[in-house]
Amino acid sequence: MKRVAILGATGLVGQRFVQLLANHPYFEISALAASNMSAAKPYKEAVAWRLDTPIPENVMDMIVQECKPTFECDYVFSALPSDIAGPIEDEFINAGYTVFSNAASHRMDDNVPLVIPEVNYQHMSIVQSQHTNGKIITNPNCSTIGLVMALKPIADLFDIEEVHVVTMQALSGAGYPGVSSLDVVDNVYPYINGEEEKIMTESKKILGNLNNGSIKPALFDIFAQCNRVPVVDGHLLSVFVKTKKPADVEQIKGAINNFQPLKTFNLPSAPEHPLVYLSQKDTPQPRLHRNLGRGMTVSVGQLTQFSERSLRFLALVHNTIRGAAGCAILNAEMYETMRY
Amino acid sequence: MKRVAILGATGLVGQRFVQLLANHPYFEISALAASNMSAAKPYKEAVAWRLDTPIPENVMDMIVQECKPTFECDYVFSALPSDIAGPIEDEFINAGYTVFSNAASHRMDDNVPLVIPEVNYQHMSIVQSQHTNGKIITNPNCSTIGLVMALKPIADLFDIEEVHVVTMQALSGAGYPGVSSLDVVDNVYPYINGEEEKIMTESKKILGNLNNGSIKPALFDIFAQCNRVPVVDGHLLSVFVKTKKPADVEQIKGAINNFQPLKTFNLPSAPEHPLVYLSQKDTPQPRLHRNLGRGMTVSVGQLTQFSERSLRFLALVHNTIRGAAGCAILNAEMYETMRY
Amino acid sequence: MKRVAILGATGLVGQRFVQLLANHPYFEISALAASNMSAAKPYKEAVAWRLDTPIPENVMDMIVQECKPTFECDYVFSALPSDIAGPIEDEFINAGYTVFSNAASHRMDDNVPLVIPEVNYQHMSIVQSQHTNGKIITNPNCSTIGLVMALKPIADLFDIEEVHVVTMQALSGAGYPGVSSLDVVDNVYPYINGEEEKIMTESKKILGNLNNGSIKPALFDIFAQCNRVPVVDGHLLSVFVKTKKPADVEQIKGAINNFQPLKTFNLPSAPEHPLVYLSQKDTPQPRLHRNLGRGMTVSVGQLTQFSERSLRFLALVHNTIRGAAGCAILNAEMYETMRY
Amino acid sequence: MKRVAILGATGLVGQRFVQLLANHPYFEISALAASNMSAAKPYKEAVAWRLDTPIPENVMDMIVQECKPTFECDYVFSALPSDIAGPIEDEFINAGYTVFSNAASHRMDDNVPLVIPEVNYQHMSIVQSQHTNGKIITNPNCSTIGLVMALKPIADLFDIEEVHVVTMQALSGAGYPGVSSLDVVDNVYPYINGEEEKIMTESKKILGNLNNGSIKPALFDIFAQCNRVPVVDGHLLSVFVKTKKPADVEQIKGAINNFQPLKTFNLPSAPEHPLVYLSQKDTPQPRLHRNLGRGMTVSVGQLTQFSERSLRFLALVHNTIRGAAGCAILNAEMYETMRY
Repeated sequence: MKRVAILGATGLVGQRFVQLLANHPYFEISALAASNMSAAKPYKEAVAWRLDTPIPENVMDMIVQECKPTFECDYVFSALPSDIAGPIEDEFINAGYTVFSNAASHRMDDNVPLVIPEVNYQHMSIVQSQHTNGKIITNPNCSTIGLVMALKPIADLFDIEEVHVVTMQALSGAGYPGVSSLDVVDNVYPYINGEEEKIMTESKKILGNLNNGSIKPALFDIFAQCNRVPVVDGHLLSVFVKTKKPADVEQIKGAINNFQPLKTFNLPSAPEHPLVYLSQKDTPQPRLHRNLGRGMTVSVGQLTQFSERSLRFLALVHNTIRGAAGCAILNAEMYETMRY
Repeated sequence: MKRVAILGATGLVGQRFVQLLANHPYFEISALAASNMSAAKPYKEAVAWRLDTPIPENVMDMIVQECKPTFECDYVFSALPSDIAGPIEDEFINAGYTVFSNAASHRMDDNVPLVIPEVNYQHMSIVQSQHTNGKIITNPNCSTIGLVMALKPIADLFDIEEVHVVTMQALSGAGYPGVSSLDVVDNVYPYINGEEEKIMTESKKILGNLNNGSIKPALFDIFAQCNRVPVVDGHLLSVFVKTKKPADVEQIKGAINNFQPLKTFNLPSAPEHPLVYLSQKDTPQPRLHRNLGRGMTVSVGQLTQFSERSLRFLALVHNTIRGAAGCAILNAEMYETMRY
Repeated sequence: MKRVAILGATGLVGQRFVQLLANHPYFEISALAASNMSAAKPYKEAVAWRLDTPIPENVMDMIVQECKPTFECDYVFSALPSDIAGPIEDEFINAGYTVFSNAASHRMDDNVPLVIPEVNYQHMSIVQSQHTNGKIITNPNCSTIGLVMALKPIADLFDIEEVHVVTMQALSGAGYPGVSSLDVVDNVYPYINGEEEKIMTESKKILGNLNNGSIKPALFDIFAQCNRVPVVDGHLLSVFVKTKKPADVEQIKGAINNFQPLKTFNLPSAPEHPLVYLSQKDTPQPRLHRNLGRGMTVSVGQLTQFSERSLRFLALVHNTIRGAAGCAILNAEMYETMRY
Repeated sequence: MKRVAILGATGLVGQRFVQLLANHPYFEISALAASNMSAAKPYKEAVAWRLDTPIPENVMDMIVQECKPTFECDYVFSALPSDIAGPIEDEFINAGYTVFSNAASHRMDDNVPLVIPEVNYQHMSIVQSQHTNGKIITNPNCSTIGLVMALKPIADLFDIEEVHVVTMQALSGAGYPGVSSLDVVDNVYPYINGEEEKIMTESKKILGNLNNGSIKPALFDIFAQCNRVPVVDGHLLSVFVKTKKPADVEQIKGAINNFQPLKTFNLPSAPEHPLVYLSQKDTPQPRLHRNLGRGMTVSVGQLTQFSERSLRFLALVHNTIRGAAGCAILNAEMYETMRY
């Protein structure tokens, strides 16, 4: 049993870490850390719990600590807001901790793995080129994770030339209190700060090639436009893809449903089906399908071919499970298994 | 003063016709018609009024009639559902009425004008090739209207090669009761029957060329994906465009703000600015901008250039005013002015 | 293992029966029945599944039957719409079936038990006075269940003189498609047909006394006003109570948290805590608390005393679990245990 | 033409003042003031405008000032948040300004009028007992205004003994960003800080008697419970009333529709009908009826008599117009007319 700490444990992603790590077979929570405002309080008082399952009994009264590298633990999960994550994570790395971060700060750093295990767990090996006391492995932005997982079988089969993606993103992605109700009641809020940039840069790194211990980003054009919609959880992505080779829709559907790259690893958080193709004309839908595979399965639907190399589909990702805490935990499980 | 009848007067678009025609300088409502279920009742009892202004006094007690060609009127506005509009409109045309239709049934017919006055009022002249007792002029689908108006300045300046559009459409577009609340609360409903097809075919006809009395559709690739979001009024469109010539963003913004092709006609329903460019990073928004120009102005924002010929923008159209009743009325005003 | 049939299996409450009966220790689904439109289709095609867990494997391909008393089964659950339930249920009763009904048709009939097991399971015995081939046991309306469960400890302690209740009810209570999205987006719809009447009559029967095999309704004044709000599941009730005896808030809170009248029966669907008092100032909330006790726990909060005999509180009930299918199943479990 | 200043001009209520005072026949805006963060910026840059009409041209570029008593103006409107309003308003009063305040700070002060002109304009005269350089007149809390206006005809006819009110309040009442979207999407948030207290104390003062220059509060019991619902504008109130005398529903409806106490004053912001009774079974509804009388009319519906002295009804008030800025402006118009 490895002891783990959670940085930013009171935020919405922090709450998901707490929820997903209750009764985890590899990891047990040994420390919860958050801002000074929360520190020294029992977790149940420090947190504005917004999940629909109760706070797990074992952390209810755990005293929240400051985000200082003084914990007794094996791994650190970082659910810190990106605007403050960088320096705090650096402190932990310098102090020798192994950090699995959901924050954006280090994602694009040269020797930092940016990993969705089902897509590019091989990239995790570049952690060996980190010449610091500790290590850091990151997972991508929540929208990027959904997009890249859905693109992976297409990329493998037919090569990608160009991607246009329009996102309809859930409220939980902005934390709590996050998005003002006045921006999403009888409205769509057509802007998410920094999100388009993240999608456009991260997806090329993840789909890039590992070459002599470094990642060479994939070469394709990608354009994103991001919107906030009044959905609690679940980012819906409307994606147009141009492939390099002539595409075949049935082949892609088959590849989606057979996509099981981690099968042999038996990781506890890995869903049986990381991708699932839904064949009804009006799917996927956030409320109905975000919890597939306990929130770890990305669902794809409405795959349509407009011309030989021109496709579109919809993809849905649970943004705080597969798109954040769940992906970080899966990274840690993979790391634990691979023992780099 | 011309007398006008409204077919489908009890539906949401019919209600907009009633609202917009109250105190109209050219037209006065002389008949309201709807299904048998509504016929013979006073309008105020037949209608499930869902607009936020009261029913105009002058039609409150008007007795709703059946949709039979027996009215004393000069023009007929059709707000009928598309699945029944065709044959009913034919009866009126055969009986010698001039019909301005918001329904899809005849839009793509060869000698039927499909007109947004600011974009292609010249196409209205093909009505002369209709060898029927009466005439029919149609306006496009609500999403198409917003898309094509926003594309027009780009098409004029730089020629369009390809368009990808993702729509986030308002509930009123589906009528009342229309969309189930369970499909849009904590959800996005990612499908609208027939909508993608309409956008893809109609836009090419509207942007096509009038040639010897017939319309030659424009040649560009267009792909659409349509979603329903919990917004009362106002369709938001996220659009990627590839131009044939190298584009210039500032030139397009200028052309949008100076787009006033109907200026000399002084039509009562024509807004001063049919298009407006909003320069804030988070615009346009349905709730804030749908009523610009009394619902007749399409607002555009976030115009961004990804590469020389690759652009994206957002457009917003009030779907039941500019996108339906308002456009039909503007067509009638133009027809009245041109006297074909 | 008893075989059970579900009438109205394709509706939202029917779907909950299907979901809750998957892997039930006493009951297995042997027949699914619905309207002629659905009959003869596999369940997965007949149903517009709107729950966020997948359709259970074992019923996916079960052929939906008509609602005719021809099933091989031990018990029948009725999730029929109230406007058609009466005669159909009568057919089943006359044919000798034991029916557990969620429909309103027979609830107020003299010798029909109207039961929430935790409140009045003793009333179930009046089923013995039914001189029909089969039997019928009903559960109350969804709002009534939440109200009466929360009132029970107060009634026991201090006697109730008067109740005012304002409901804010979830969309799933009206079925699918049910409530129009245009009635609840940027709106509250302040009317639910027949609901106030049901709350006002049913609550007195449930809290009434069993006397020589018949129920004498409780005597108190009760006034209700019902609203539909854009919440998927979970009816929130704002309740004012006047008691006959001077009340004590702390005593009531204690009684709520210790309310375990079924403890000795070990019924599989009975939650450990049928009632729970939440002490935060802003609770209960539909999204956060409706799933407590797997949807079978009614949560109470904000209990406040205005004067000696004047109180108010909020109560929350999951309307399709505790308030419908779950209560009917619990009734069946109790019936099975008691073997009347 | 009187010059007016607006304190808190960038908030949602401040925006309503700006909107309602554009083209006002008595008043012209001579100064806009807000927090230090906004001061020295042009209004259009300082404000996060959230109304669906554009910012009026004449204030677009007005430079926002600090809230210091240095304006050249005749009247000051205060839209300040209640937690900071008190001392700032005091500074203006001491400096000799006449302040019309929407803030709670001074509402319950002994010699401060708390006025809804249609209900108790006579109370305004107690301003004469203010022995300060300037004066202050306040309007009630937004919910209180709707409640008291609807209660007034009942109080006049049959005397009120007890009131229970449950509110379903709009988001704009909490300002911007205000309520977190996560608290109201698929949820009702059952708590509004301080609101119940305000309703319970203010309503007695407003309905109290003016006696020798002071107000004697009305004597009745009033209990409130307040909820936030996902509605942009318009507070809906569900009210139970016990009267002292036997009540008559038809008399009350008549009194509501004939309620025109300000008729002879011809105040520009006074609606023709301050109250209107809506007779459909499902009215009033926030989205459909909040704008009646340009947002100044309170609509009442579903008046029902349970017993001789026991009634219930629903009332709807536009919370930022009649319930805030509009009421303050009406107070100023009345003050200007009465010239105390």
